[in-house]
Amino acid sequence: MLSIFGVPGLPEIVPGSDLASMIAGAAAAAGTPLADGDVVVVTSKIVSKAEGRIVALDSVEVSPFARQFAERWEKDPAVVELVLQESRRVVRQVGPILITETRHGFICANSGVDQSSSGGHGLAVLLPVDPDASAARIRSGLKARGADAAVIISDTFGRPWREAQTDIAIGIAGMQPVMSYIGQVDPHGHEFRVQALCVADELAGAAELVKGNLSRVPVAVIRGHQWEPDETGTMQSIIRDTERDLFR
Amino acid sequence: MLSIFGVPGLPEIVPGSDLASMIAGAAAAAGTPLADGDVVVVTSKIVSKAEGRIVALDSVEVSPFARQFAERWEKDPAVVELVLQESRRVVRQVGPILITETRHGFICANSGVDQSSSGGHGLAVLLPVDPDASAARIRSGLKARGADAAVIISDTFGRPWREAQTDIAIGIAGMQPVMSYIGQVDPHGHEFRVQALCVADELAGAAELVKGNLSRVPVAVIRGHQWEPDETGTMQSIIRDTERDLFR
Repeated sequence: MLSIFGVPGLPEIVPGSDLASMIAGAAAAAGTPLADGDVVVVTSKIVSKAEGRIVALDSVEVSPFARQFAERWEKDPAVVELVLQESRRVVRQVGPILITETRHGFICANSGVDQSSSGGHGLAVLLPVDPDASAARIRSGLKARGADAAVIISDTFGRPWREAQTDIAIGIAGMQPVMSYIGQVDPHGHEFRVQALCVADELAGAAELVKGNLSRVPVAVIRGHQWEPDETGTMQSIIRDTERDLFR
Repeated sequence: MLSIFGVPGLPEIVPGSDLASMIAGAAAAAGTPLADGDVVVVTSKIVSKAEGRIVALDSVEVSPFARQFAERWEKDPAVVELVLQESRRVVRQVGPILITETRHGFICANSGVDQSSSGGHGLAVLLPVDPDASAARIRSGLKARGADAAVIISDTFGRPWREAQTDIAIGIAGMQPVMSYIGQVDPHGHEFRVQALCVADELAGAAELVKGNLSRVPVAVIRGHQWEPDETGTMQSIIRDTERDLFR
């Protein structure tokens, strides 16, 4: 049995905010203190804010290409410039849509650059530089406060073929993101068709169900999930190699 | 607060099994009877079995193309034939890998044809013919037994760019699969970057966390999720139109 609950009452996050301390404090204040074995799912946006990944759009030096693209498609030139700077490759560009491979290797719209909820006009929020490292820092901070919890940094991504978006994991600490069934056989001797499940993405999506995107609860706790402590887990490890990818 | 629990103790499912009755009975016997407002997530495999979507491989008439492909890549010719028959298009074929668009419009490996856990050697399980209709039948059966529950039929799909698989929704009844934020603005007047969330996929993934693929608990209940009753919801509605899809 799993239970999933949001952590309400977090203070406003600013550059330098100590997220682990704020999350542990808010959870305790809400009457649901963090416990060993919890999985704490943190929306990337507040991680970005705490890490100062906020850019004033009027400070961005816009390249001629970004300016041209922005004019053509009626976008903010500074935002387009940031999207390109945050990417290592444009995977698809059709009309105003830019699907990029981020510097981390994630494939998503606009390199994850977010102009909404950035705390004011004229600002954009960029993805954390190293979400696995962000997760590890939060995990370590929670541990120092008495809770041995796995940490997932989540973001909201679209996907091919299916409309609408879902929350997935971009950073993890304390556990492996994938549960593998490779080599295991069913009672009839067949190998399982399903060979490996990305539980980290399923946990991130489950957390979204209680966080919501409007309710401004950027942290959720999943209690009752069985995970093996493992400090080598990263979300980098689930990025498919270009050679093995049929859809780039 | 959400709680998610598996429904253990389901009897063996055979063609003609009354799933709604079995699920309601098993949930009650486990001490967790279904309640109004629950979301019941059912693994497609048992729906297929109940609907008789099981094929004896030695009964399959194999086309020359399927035979040639199977020989080349050391696959079972009858399985290859079923994969092709269940598809309306091969989206990618690289080596032995067949990514197809199923007759429903889902894009996945091998048209969802499953040789594992099919209840014996020499059998394959096909996806339900109309998973939305399957969900509606189960919903109606649960309602007749006193529980107004939404129903999701789930399957395990891979995805581009990211290793490992996750459970997603292929059928739904009683609610819309997508929560839309379109037109809503944040406190600063920006439209949300996230415009629509496919909660059905997040619910299916969350359910997988308690079902597992080895534990043989093919049904899970999600309690506490707020959903608006709506009999027009389908998973067909989230299949992206080919013209709007950048990755076919």
